[in-house]
Amino acid sequence: MSHTVVERASSLALDIDAERLLRRIEELGRIGADPATGGITRTGFSAADREARAYLMDEARAAGLFPAVDAAGNIVVRRRHTGQHTADRQVLMMGSHLDTVVDGGRLDGAYGVLAALEVLQTLVESGVGLRHEPVAVAFANEEGALFPQPFWGSMAAAGRITDLPEEPCDHQGRPLRNALRLAGGDLDALGSACWPEQSVAAYLELHVEQGPVLERSGSRIGVVEAITGRIVLTLEIQGAAGHSGTTPMDARCDALGAAARVVLAAEHIARQRKLCRVATVGRLDPYPNTPNTIAGAVRMTVDLRDTDVWRAGDAEETLRAMLHDIAEATGTRIEVVAETRSDPVFTDPRLRETIVRSADELGLPHEKLPSGAGHDAQFMAGITPIGMIFVPSIGGVSHVPQENTAPEDLAAGARVLLRTALRTAGPQETL
Amino acid sequence: MSHTVVERASSLALDIDAERLLRRIEELGRIGADPATGGITRTGFSAADREARAYLMDEARAAGLFPAVDAAGNIVVRRRHTGQHTADRQVLMMGSHLDTVVDGGRLDGAYGVLAALEVLQTLVESGVGLRHEPVAVAFANEEGALFPQPFWGSMAAAGRITDLPEEPCDHQGRPLRNALRLAGGDLDALGSACWPEQSVAAYLELHVEQGPVLERSGSRIGVVEAITGRIVLTLEIQGAAGHSGTTPMDARCDALGAAARVVLAAEHIARQRKLCRVATVGRLDPYPNTPNTIAGAVRMTVDLRDTDVWRAGDAEETLRAMLHDIAEATGTRIEVVAETRSDPVFTDPRLRETIVRSADELGLPHEKLPSGAGHDAQFMAGITPIGMIFVPSIGGVSHVPQENTAPEDLAAGARVLLRTALRTAGPQETL
Repeated sequence: MSHTVVERASSLALDIDAERLLRRIEELGRIGADPATGGITRTGFSAADREARAYLMDEARAAGLFPAVDAAGNIVVRRRHTGQHTADRQVLMMGSHLDTVVDGGRLDGAYGVLAALEVLQTLVESGVGLRHEPVAVAFANEEGALFPQPFWGSMAAAGRITDLPEEPCDHQGRPLRNALRLAGGDLDALGSACWPEQSVAAYLELHVEQGPVLERSGSRIGVVEAITGRIVLTLEIQGAAGHSGTTPMDARCDALGAAARVVLAAEHIARQRKLCRVATVGRLDPYPNTPNTIAGAVRMTVDLRDTDVWRAGDAEETLRAMLHDIAEATGTRIEVVAETRSDPVFTDPRLRETIVRSADELGLPHEKLPSGAGHDAQFMAGITPIGMIFVPSIGGVSHVPQENTAPEDLAAGARVLLRTALRTAGPQETL
Repeated sequence: MSHTVVERASSLALDIDAERLLRRIEELGRIGADPATGGITRTGFSAADREARAYLMDEARAAGLFPAVDAAGNIVVRRRHTGQHTADRQVLMMGSHLDTVVDGGRLDGAYGVLAALEVLQTLVESGVGLRHEPVAVAFANEEGALFPQPFWGSMAAAGRITDLPEEPCDHQGRPLRNALRLAGGDLDALGSACWPEQSVAAYLELHVEQGPVLERSGSRIGVVEAITGRIVLTLEIQGAAGHSGTTPMDARCDALGAAARVVLAAEHIARQRKLCRVATVGRLDPYPNTPNTIAGAVRMTVDLRDTDVWRAGDAEETLRAMLHDIAEATGTRIEVVAETRSDPVFTDPRLRETIVRSADELGLPHEKLPSGAGHDAQFMAGITPIGMIFVPSIGGVSHVPQENTAPEDLAAGARVLLRTALRTAGPQETL
């Protein structure tokens, strides 16, 4: 029995401190919590988000680790102080994000960051020798709930932020520049947040499933095969505002009447015609939005998703034809004023198999599945192989206060992450 | 020829100063104006509203008149300083309101107030003897766009504010008490704003039509027969929020999907089934209103109007049955959380005939018509006979920046108001 084999056996016997992980999840879950709804509002770069960031950095420092903030506002936690995004060897990056949607849950993103910190701390405390440097990261503004660029941090890390407006602002018109500076970032040095070619050996993200698949099948670990593609169209409907008491029905161009038809058209495309997996209108703002005035304009989004890029395209084409008919029938003008597109992204087959093997060894039932939600991993896939691990969501819900996962599943996910990290960055290439 | 007949002949030869009226309309129209839209936002008790109030009082004082603010924030302009709402003889009240909807026009309300001031000034300057004391009034917060009690001022004047919340607030949660104090009112003394029984001989309101009837027929004066009845239901739809990427279509309870069906149901009731004259959803607020989350809740209003109280009731009953079906089909809960009801109100037949006669003498083509919009007059009808005069709205639109009326029609309306006031409050009972 060689020394290497001993080291390998001992490193795979390593375990995370589940209590510590659960304590941190609970403590972080108090930041931005609304006692009235039980939900968490920690929109990216808000005051609550900054508080969460400070919490993470304090915990890292207390664990003897070195947190640093890059120009995009990403928090990078390392085992020793180094120059920004440089290393004498490749890093194994693990992480997710700390920000939330409005009135969301405490696990989406935060769980993956805290589990990454837990795994990093376990590795450092164990003194195990590793081929790649393990790094925990909290990507900034994944949700885009306040400043309207979701995946901001991971896009910057992957060098994917290219067409930034002159002075980007949040939904309330406040400049990102200031908010970013308060978070420790620097808009003018954004390029420095990008990781150099070959510097990242792999990116692993642990996340709650946010859907019902694992719960329904009884699996405790999900091995993500692909992150779904997404098309988000922002529509502007122009009708004619008018007094709701004095404008005859046959003289109206009601923008909200048109918007209602768009909501039903999107639903129809996914539910009845099954052209794509899901279609959602989540945001809808009528103007001027008073009981007494026919809506003169509506701004709204339609979100279409499928893991098959051709199906998503078909769904979009059908929707656009329906928009044309709706505009004609309601005497309104419907314009697509913005589009966000992300193609489906596939996880690395070898990382998938490493996750499967880790779950097997821990006796955790698992299954492969697609991710309906977008994740920072999909942008990291542009510069490095990615692996994603899911744990079950109780009731299949997320982005709501009720979002939850059983504590033993939270611990199990982190254990699979630890093993996967060890196998990927561990002392031997072929563990 | 007796002295009385001379006086009558001379008083009916009186004319308003059309230039002065148009100048004031223009000046007042700059307050709260948005250069981007061309519209006016002067919501009741806002800073812009206070500026408009100050303008009116300055103009009144400059004309040698005496403006005073009552406890509800109504501005009452009189020919001499008197105790609040008292007089040795009955008053003939003329007026409307200064506040606007969000991004509304410059004439709705403001025109009626400035015309009342013009008529009062003309009467006072002429020195003509009158049986009733002419009074111009600007009722506070008619639109209810900020503090959610439309017709606030006229309801208070008519003693109709009965079930006020402990601490009424505006849509942003700011207490009315403070806003009212800044406007010169006093929430604790609200009862003093009520005009004593028999103190008001009549109430006359001049207003833009806000609809297309006069323009289509070529009439220059509208003689309002009735103010339409109105039922406004505020609905709260409870669905289940969820992630828009991970929640399968068949597992959704989309509150916005239900709301879209309600919008179309309201439209259907008025347009296809013609159960009431008009039906409108003007306000719709999804929650949390982000592209990435299925709406968990929606708050919205449905506004039904008809001059026939039975028809409006039928329309409401049908709508409620449809709400029940929509809730069942979408797996949501739909609750009616607030109702505002106003029955149709009829104008005084004698005042109607006085308006007709005045228009005839001025050679102005006129017609009788209902008012689709609510007006302060409908609450004043509870304590005094009311008369309402309309002038044409260009394009039939109102509550929008494009709201407009030809200058000659604005002058004509004020002339009809002057004649009607003279005939009603004039030196002889039977002019």
